[in-house]
Amino acid sequence: MAPTRITACSVRDVRFPTSLEKDGSDAMNKAPDYSCAYVVFSTDSDLQGHGITFTVGKGNEIVCHATEVLSKMVVGQELKVIYGNFGLFWRSLTSEDQMRWLGPEKGVMHLAVAALTNALWDLWAKIERKPLWKLLVDMEPEQLVSAIDFRYMHDVLTPQEAVEQELLEKGYPCYTTSCGWLGYEDEKIKRLCKEALAQGFTRFKAKVGADLKDDQRRCRLLREMIGPDNVLMVDANQRWEVQEAIDWMKGLADCNITWIEEPTSPDDILGHQQIAKALKPLGIGVATGEACQNRIMFKQFLAAGAMQFCQIDSCRLGGVSENVAVILMANKFGVPVCPHGGGVGLCELVQHLSMFDFVSVSGSMENRMTEYLDHLHQHFKYPCVVKGGRYTPPQAPGYSIDMKESSLADYEWPKGRAWQELIANGTYTLD
Amino acid sequence: MAPTRITACSVRDVRFPTSLEKDGSDAMNKAPDYSCAYVVFSTDSDLQGHGITFTVGKGNEIVCHATEVLSKMVVGQELKVIYGNFGLFWRSLTSEDQMRWLGPEKGVMHLAVAALTNALWDLWAKIERKPLWKLLVDMEPEQLVSAIDFRYMHDVLTPQEAVEQELLEKGYPCYTTSCGWLGYEDEKIKRLCKEALAQGFTRFKAKVGADLKDDQRRCRLLREMIGPDNVLMVDANQRWEVQEAIDWMKGLADCNITWIEEPTSPDDILGHQQIAKALKPLGIGVATGEACQNRIMFKQFLAAGAMQFCQIDSCRLGGVSENVAVILMANKFGVPVCPHGGGVGLCELVQHLSMFDFVSVSGSMENRMTEYLDHLHQHFKYPCVVKGGRYTPPQAPGYSIDMKESSLADYEWPKGRAWQELIANGTYTLD
Repeated sequence: MAPTRITACSVRDVRFPTSLEKDGSDAMNKAPDYSCAYVVFSTDSDLQGHGITFTVGKGNEIVCHATEVLSKMVVGQELKVIYGNFGLFWRSLTSEDQMRWLGPEKGVMHLAVAALTNALWDLWAKIERKPLWKLLVDMEPEQLVSAIDFRYMHDVLTPQEAVEQELLEKGYPCYTTSCGWLGYEDEKIKRLCKEALAQGFTRFKAKVGADLKDDQRRCRLLREMIGPDNVLMVDANQRWEVQEAIDWMKGLADCNITWIEEPTSPDDILGHQQIAKALKPLGIGVATGEACQNRIMFKQFLAAGAMQFCQIDSCRLGGVSENVAVILMANKFGVPVCPHGGGVGLCELVQHLSMFDFVSVSGSMENRMTEYLDHLHQHFKYPCVVKGGRYTPPQAPGYSIDMKESSLADYEWPKGRAWQELIANGTYTLD
Repeated sequence: MAPTRITACSVRDVRFPTSLEKDGSDAMNKAPDYSCAYVVFSTDSDLQGHGITFTVGKGNEIVCHATEVLSKMVVGQELKVIYGNFGLFWRSLTSEDQMRWLGPEKGVMHLAVAALTNALWDLWAKIERKPLWKLLVDMEPEQLVSAIDFRYMHDVLTPQEAVEQELLEKGYPCYTTSCGWLGYEDEKIKRLCKEALAQGFTRFKAKVGADLKDDQRRCRLLREMIGPDNVLMVDANQRWEVQEAIDWMKGLADCNITWIEEPTSPDDILGHQQIAKALKPLGIGVATGEACQNRIMFKQFLAAGAMQFCQIDSCRLGGVSENVAVILMANKFGVPVCPHGGGVGLCELVQHLSMFDFVSVSGSMENRMTEYLDHLHQHFKYPCVVKGGRYTPPQAPGYSIDMKESSLADYEWPKGRAWQELIANGTYTLD
């Protein structure tokens, strides 16, 4: 029997002790524990929708709480109401009369919207027995457009501009950040570079921003290891003031850097615009977006020439609908979309968005690549598959979110087996 | 004995059923229940610090939860550590390694920071036995500057630019929104206008944005009631697209409107810039800020000429420190600060910020006025006093936040007596 309505929702606080290995260390996040709010919607059939939003540890319980509160607006709803006009349903979640004060459309509440709507998209794809990217690609333009909330976008893009484009299917290029974490030592960087090159990677990203001399040393080492023709990007994780970003990057320009990512506050559109203008003569573009809160901010980054690479985040924006809105706007401005990967589950999710972007929107892989990190994929039932530096199009129905039941049991915070051990031996404390 | 450290924190979910009277109705908030997360810090003396952040009802429990989680970083701290460099302590709350992912510096987490740091400022003023505005005014410039986090502001303002200015003491002009709610009928508007004029008000604000013809009718009625020389502003509460805002306001220009408040998304700096440019020939300025998430957004609104009136919010920004930062930036750009009042407790708080602005920063009342609404003041121990359309400088030590114990007991959600009655008789439900 096909499902007709949402009957229940469970939200679990799942965390991984990644800070123990210094995976994910950068200039602003010294010791993240990759975590997520894990949502499961049950229906009146066997099908379930799974969704996540991503955080880096502490406070994940606040996001879980917000997700539970918002989920009450979904449980009991008929699927034809939800999917009949998904854009309108999305707006009912982001713009609830009283709760929109807590955002609007940003921070904790928007992370919760992402978790819930990611699960609804996953369910939709499972009902249609398609991987999510294929569900999107196969939609009639009118149906796709009805899944997007165009509020506050009309000055740059209207629903009528939605386009249908040629369909193609190939692997999608990705880049790796695994070699370039701030906390890694030289020998580890060299070894990881060799491994990545052997696996076919041609695009690499390093973390910078704590110490200029150290950044110069590591970037030169990376450039030496990967050779002159491969691509090198750097990422400052919001570390700098505006002028500081410009000066710092001048000191790294000899390494032939394609982009500087998150040079300053993710809220500073005009600051990014200044940085982009100053670095253009050096051939360095500005990349940002993983902490960009919503489509209205993306609209301005794109219109102001403040962003040469558009890094959507599958869990920061309000789910698939808002990501598609941003992909369409970026296309209008001719800015390549290079999604944020990593964390836990982000690679699994964003690969779908990149496939859709390529097949239905941009039709191009030029200057386009999706981040890839080799962490935590073992916890997923349908982990992403990267071959020769490219994401392979996922084939299983859904949004590739489903986590293994054993992983959920081990890593649910704080009662999971793995956490109980780490708390018992004093590695972590409850507060 | 003077207190030396914070020993405990309590957070209470306090709500008022204001939606029953349609107080606060506007184009986006049809039925708000004014609410707050109410914080009390205890110390090792008799003194306590009280703080709030404001919401409009549902979801207030999420803010309370976030406030409780963040409060663990404050309890146990020595006061000399907190107040010795309050800017640095503030940053430790907003930039905690893992929790900053949930913002950064926006939405639920920033509301929680506001509640906590408002309570710390209140405590500081009580220790010094001064009303908060006087504590600020009496500070040495270096001490005031050390209470601000200047991160991401260096391109427009540096700590060295802090200024000391002449000290004066007068009442501070205010305006009233009480006459102009969207849901009010003509006769009620007329009656309220007459009452406000009799009380000495010369500045009035109306809500617009749902229906142009109805707005024209109500604005003309208001203009007729208040006469040609008094000031009239309108507020759309984020209702419009960019072009829609421009067109709509052209239809109201004959009423001699001083400002249009929140014409579109509070995140759309470049959109506000466009609107401001188009409306300048009509003598209409753009006012915004009550939903502006942090100093970095204010920086851009000010630099882009997107805001002719700067409406800081005592509970949306991260407490007194960040409000002072924005007051200093606005002064640098020559933009008058007209704080957001209303809600529950906002008038009590913002009067302190306006006094400080006048006495220590701008030295001017030209084009400056603080919102005033006559709601819910009876619940506070030291309610604001408005005479002849002006706020009277508060004299009691602290930030005027302390709520009466009987009000807390009646309105704590959901166990307070008032709520138990409303739930029992079916007016409200728990979910």
